[in-house]
Amino acid sequence: MQSKLLSRRDADFLLYEWLDLEALTQRPRFADHSRETFTAALDTAEKIATDLFAPHNRLSDADEPHAIPGAKCLEVQMIPEVKTALDAYIGAGLMAAGQDYELGGMQLPVTVEKLAAAYFTAANVSTTSYAFLTIGNANTLLKTGTPDQIRRFVQPMLEGRYFGTMCLSEPQAGSSLSDITTRAEPDPVAGPEGERQYRLKGNKMWISAGEHELAGNIVHLVLAKIPGPDGKLIPGVKGISLFIVPKHLVNDDGTLGERNDVVLAGLNHKMGNRGTTNCLLNFGEGVFTPAGKAGAIGYLVGQPHQGLANMFHMMNEARIGVGAGAAVLGYTGYLHALDYARNRPQGRHPANKDPAQPQLAIVEHTDVRRMLLAQKAYAEGALGLVLYSAKLVDDERTAPDPEQRALASRLLEFLTPITKSWPSQWCVEANSLAIQVHGGYGYTREYPVEQFYRDNRLNAIHEGTHGIHGLDLLGRKAAMQEGALLKAFAAEVRKTVDQSSRGDYAGIADYGRQLDAALRRVERTTATLYGAGDMNKTLANASVYLEAVGHVVVAWVWLQQAIAAKAGLDAGATHEDEAFYRGKLQACRYFYRWELPKTDTQFDLLDSLDTTTLDMQDAWF
Amino acid sequence: MQSKLLSRRDADFLLYEWLDLEALTQRPRFADHSRETFTAALDTAEKIATDLFAPHNRLSDADEPHAIPGAKCLEVQMIPEVKTALDAYIGAGLMAAGQDYELGGMQLPVTVEKLAAAYFTAANVSTTSYAFLTIGNANTLLKTGTPDQIRRFVQPMLEGRYFGTMCLSEPQAGSSLSDITTRAEPDPVAGPEGERQYRLKGNKMWISAGEHELAGNIVHLVLAKIPGPDGKLIPGVKGISLFIVPKHLVNDDGTLGERNDVVLAGLNHKMGNRGTTNCLLNFGEGVFTPAGKAGAIGYLVGQPHQGLANMFHMMNEARIGVGAGAAVLGYTGYLHALDYARNRPQGRHPANKDPAQPQLAIVEHTDVRRMLLAQKAYAEGALGLVLYSAKLVDDERTAPDPEQRALASRLLEFLTPITKSWPSQWCVEANSLAIQVHGGYGYTREYPVEQFYRDNRLNAIHEGTHGIHGLDLLGRKAAMQEGALLKAFAAEVRKTVDQSSRGDYAGIADYGRQLDAALRRVERTTATLYGAGDMNKTLANASVYLEAVGHVVVAWVWLQQAIAAKAGLDAGATHEDEAFYRGKLQACRYFYRWELPKTDTQFDLLDSLDTTTLDMQDAWF
Repeated sequence: MQSKLLSRRDADFLLYEWLDLEALTQRPRFADHSRETFTAALDTAEKIATDLFAPHNRLSDADEPHAIPGAKCLEVQMIPEVKTALDAYIGAGLMAAGQDYELGGMQLPVTVEKLAAAYFTAANVSTTSYAFLTIGNANTLLKTGTPDQIRRFVQPMLEGRYFGTMCLSEPQAGSSLSDITTRAEPDPVAGPEGERQYRLKGNKMWISAGEHELAGNIVHLVLAKIPGPDGKLIPGVKGISLFIVPKHLVNDDGTLGERNDVVLAGLNHKMGNRGTTNCLLNFGEGVFTPAGKAGAIGYLVGQPHQGLANMFHMMNEARIGVGAGAAVLGYTGYLHALDYARNRPQGRHPANKDPAQPQLAIVEHTDVRRMLLAQKAYAEGALGLVLYSAKLVDDERTAPDPEQRALASRLLEFLTPITKSWPSQWCVEANSLAIQVHGGYGYTREYPVEQFYRDNRLNAIHEGTHGIHGLDLLGRKAAMQEGALLKAFAAEVRKTVDQSSRGDYAGIADYGRQLDAALRRVERTTATLYGAGDMNKTLANASVYLEAVGHVVVAWVWLQQAIAAKAGLDAGATHEDEAFYRGKLQACRYFYRWELPKTDTQFDLLDSLDTTTLDMQDAWF
Repeated sequence: MQSKLLSRRDADFLLYEWLDLEALTQRPRFADHSRETFTAALDTAEKIATDLFAPHNRLSDADEPHAIPGAKCLEVQMIPEVKTALDAYIGAGLMAAGQDYELGGMQLPVTVEKLAAAYFTAANVSTTSYAFLTIGNANTLLKTGTPDQIRRFVQPMLEGRYFGTMCLSEPQAGSSLSDITTRAEPDPVAGPEGERQYRLKGNKMWISAGEHELAGNIVHLVLAKIPGPDGKLIPGVKGISLFIVPKHLVNDDGTLGERNDVVLAGLNHKMGNRGTTNCLLNFGEGVFTPAGKAGAIGYLVGQPHQGLANMFHMMNEARIGVGAGAAVLGYTGYLHALDYARNRPQGRHPANKDPAQPQLAIVEHTDVRRMLLAQKAYAEGALGLVLYSAKLVDDERTAPDPEQRALASRLLEFLTPITKSWPSQWCVEANSLAIQVHGGYGYTREYPVEQFYRDNRLNAIHEGTHGIHGLDLLGRKAAMQEGALLKAFAAEVRKTVDQSSRGDYAGIADYGRQLDAALRRVERTTATLYGAGDMNKTLANASVYLEAVGHVVVAWVWLQQAIAAKAGLDAGATHEDEAFYRGKLQACRYFYRWELPKTDTQFDLLDSLDTTTLDMQDAWF
């Protein structure tokens, strides 16, 4: 039976027929790798995801983790299947799949790592989150931590003995990190390695995987402020520093020491993603008194006041991760809807409704095909965008030519808000369509699509809301380095447009002309908005800009896929492959006929410097 | 504190400043009524909804009804708050609010009845469903039942002693009613009043309120087929008849008789609407043996083979009901988001980000205003459409002039698929925006908006899916009576356009011109589609047609509201009223700048007779 997590045929197409991933094996870092080792990694991921992650996806949704009173503070109970699955994940070495050999890693390209990860997200986003947060935490510390911090905290995470978190938000400061109030006071006593240590006090909200018994220790990465000489916190992001705050202190020899003063204050109960504990954590309230007094012991990471910069080192990757999660939930929902549509008989064609004839499988209805084709266009477009971005991370790190690395970096900066936001918007829409294809059945918890819809709705909120990414794209990325990011992006798109005009497939050349026109609109609109002369006006409709540019980007991704599919057809495809390539071309056609034209209205609105929302007054609501 | 269910100021505006509901009191049927009696009915609804329905909305979502084994079959248990609330609803006479005095009713106009109902839906859609299904059932039987059937079954429903259901779908026949296989065989023995009775056998799926202990009896209205002389079921809708199948038989004197052979086979567990039991019912499997043998006893309603026509007598009203439910969930979500946005401090303006300054309430952020304004435009536009349609039902029944009644009927037929579908699409979007305004909090079950989002997602599925209504609008309504319905609609729109050109407010005249242009596109596109010469091609993109025409209709509703608001301003408004009217004008502006232009792309696609979805092949997915 075909997997309903992801299509391997499509994955192979994206990796090898489009992104030319085999070329990476020419680079020293990936010299031991080959298409075979990549395939082996994906096979492992698919098998563990199918056997151990998917089976309890519904279960951990229905029977979510709950907080129970422990001896001194709240503790978490959850179904045992979560740990069993994560242990297998760790056992297969996947926690360190992308890391250096000397760290026990496999040195897999990020692109392959993200695709392997996609199987787990498709199978069970909640259980997978515990692993992904740990990987993100480890990557941050590898960038900025001391060798000792890496030895004591990162190594056990890569081995799966400790898990990690990111503690940014506070109840009064979600999107506005400059307003955090967690304090970190220097402790007169030194830490285990003579290292200076701090005592933290404050509350952190929305901490995913903030408490559980899945690993021996939890390494919290915490944003907090070191008070100035006057004892006051420095306003704004400038005052923010980054700290390691382990749940249990770690002795010099690596054994666990005292329980640190960080405790679970409560779990948030969410609409979806229920299997991942989401916590309010209290730091430094004296429930535990490590080294004889209240205050959560923390170790500074990098320089003081560089906390946000240090944390954001890995933000691009984390954001690609969110986009990947959204894309993959859209993808698995699509495969479930397709399977249902092929097996559910219902109704007849409008032109022949003879009720004495048997009913058709609903995939025969044009409106059902519309819903499936839209899902295919959204999900495969989103996955393409995510893998393209992951490839940029690989290029940024390992491309032989410094120019190529710099280019990858510029493209990545520009695309990241879109790679995060576009799948988060359109793959929820895909999940809604998956429900719709199932009809009443899709609305029940007997079928998995309603859970995908609920789980996926988180992605437009965490790691920066949709609105925040609109501001990031228009307010920062589009203007950065005198527009160099946008110029780099435009140049890449024009390469594809050129390529599209050279083939003999009329459709592709048409799409190329459409894409070229859309790109000109991006450039013109960006200039118009920056000509508004008032930053509030320039940024007023940043969300629309994000959505319009996002559609242009995915149109570009689709044109690249169409060119690759056409090449596959031209090379003489098998019967089965021919159907696959035709599907790619048809999804591309859908995107250019049905989706890209929507951006005209959006660019018109932006070009008019519309102030409808800016002019709206609170009292008028 | 202002109600977060509905804005009464807005309700009054819609009823009296726009729809001129007081004029109805000139009609004989409503002669005893006045604005005061309407207000009293709304006050009663608001009070009971607030005091008894809203408080257990979350509770019956978390602790949904469950099936437990009874002596001979499954029974249903649910939290007691549901019955308490419904008893108060019944006690206030609301089950018969729209009915004739001789039936114990209040003879309220449907428009007022629907608005009163809206308070209950906003407070608790699940508990409310038990009442609304009973009312729908009673209305059907009042149209087509015999006096004896009305006495035995309808009267107790209007008194709230019995509840009712609609049993249409079967596991193998959801949208395709022609494929139902429930059999109704004539019984040799006559029923209580010498009436011919039938024995039914079959399974009915998705039966809301199909089993519970909230009332003394449940009156199922069941579609089934009477076999032909050869013992075979007649294929297609022609073979369908309508039957009353009570859970308990009713004796001549109105006392309850034997338990009938209809039993709960299982409950469906849904994403939302969890408080309403949704049942698989087995008819005639011999669990009970009324009058000594297996087979559910049923009484024919109306003529044989006229079942669908008889059931569809009340479909327009039921579909307005679905649209109303969707609109109101969007509306209450909007009010919750607005309240949150006014009280949640977070961040600062882009042009002044000094972190030493206090944070702003998020309603000050332009992107949050965009999300609130969009919700306002969707929710108040949808509620306006619903009340306009309800007014058409009143006019169809009670307008003094037969021409006016005929016109109302034509408009109602044309608008019904839109009144059902537009709110079901855009008010889910409103609920998604309400979550987004709340950020992470909105994604938790500690806030009600995530439940609105889940509850509302049902509305695009039941009472005809989105796709079915696309086919209804384009395939039936747009072509019926040689286009007379569309012509009637166009003529009404042009009246509003004329009116808009006469005022002195530049914006309104502009909107009128835009609306006029959009209407021409509706007419031209309809002609183009019917010129395709192939019904499969004409109807291929019917869903897009439904969405585009829907936006034009709601743009028309908004222009009417803007004209009424301008009149209110011109009449010299109080300070508070002025803000209210400005809000209406701004929401209208939002709709014309941000929403209506989206239809251009949709009409372009339709005009091109695009066959992307029609050409897609199953094998290509």
